[in-house]
Amino acid sequence: MPARWNPAINRRAFVMSLAGAALVPARDVDTIQQGKVGMFGLIGKMTAAAGQRDALIAILLEGTGTMPGCLSYVVALDRDDPDAIWITEVWKDEASHRASLSLPAVRDAIAMARPLIAGFSNQVTTTPVGGQGL
Amino acid sequence: MPARWNPAINRRAFVMSLAGAALVPARDVDTIQQGKVGMFGLIGKMTAAAGQRDALIAILLEGTGTMPGCLSYVVALDRDDPDAIWITEVWKDEASHRASLSLPAVRDAIAMARPLIAGFSNQVTTTPVGGQGL
Repeated sequence: MPARWNPAINRRAFVMSLAGAALVPARDVDTIQQGKVGMFGLIGKMTAAAGQRDALIAILLEGTGTMPGCLSYVVALDRDDPDAIWITEVWKDEASHRASLSLPAVRDAIAMARPLIAGFSNQVTTTPVGGQGL
Repeated sequence: MPARWNPAINRRAFVMSLAGAALVPARDVDTIQQGKVGMFGLIGKMTAAAGQRDALIAILLEGTGTMPGCLSYVVALDRDDPDAIWITEVWKDEASHRASLSLPAVRDAIAMARPLIAGFSNQVTTTPVGGQGL
């Protein structure tokens, strides 16, 4: 079969024409619209009480180490705001996230963290559809 | 030297008192302040041209499958905005991210995606310090 009939190449060409050059097999479009496996995501900013960011992060990391259904839980410093922490989460589904809030380690972490938190903002609820590291 | 003069222990006790019962070994505080291995993170919202979100996502996923130094690259739908995509990234270091922009697959993806993008917003640069899935 000549190289020009390679299905991968044709698929690419087909979708490129759709997207003004994009690559979108129909199967992938379905996946995108529905979320690959009903994944659930959260992005949010937590602002620590002044000077408490490191202590707060240590509690977050300690309390969230083993949560069933958690595919990713990344705690990150904001490079421009010395009190801000960004937490980005990917869960197998929304029920797993809800269930995590009842885990003893998570409940303990919430109780310990509360006095160190000045506020929450920039919260977004997402449907993760794919990517590297999931 | 008595145990109470061990700087690590003293710092630990100090941070415990700060955190109202939290457990923050000095080692972890250092880790938090510096970022575990100099990791680099990005959080940002991409708004697709009307009706182009799925096509844009397919390009993003196709173009970012194998990027050296990329620890996590999650593409997610905004549940409240039908044109919005959230991209959250964790890189081994900032140099890996910069280098990725020169990868042929990434350059191709950028070129293909550009006509489908209405804008970027809510961009945050972070120093990821840990969590599940890294």
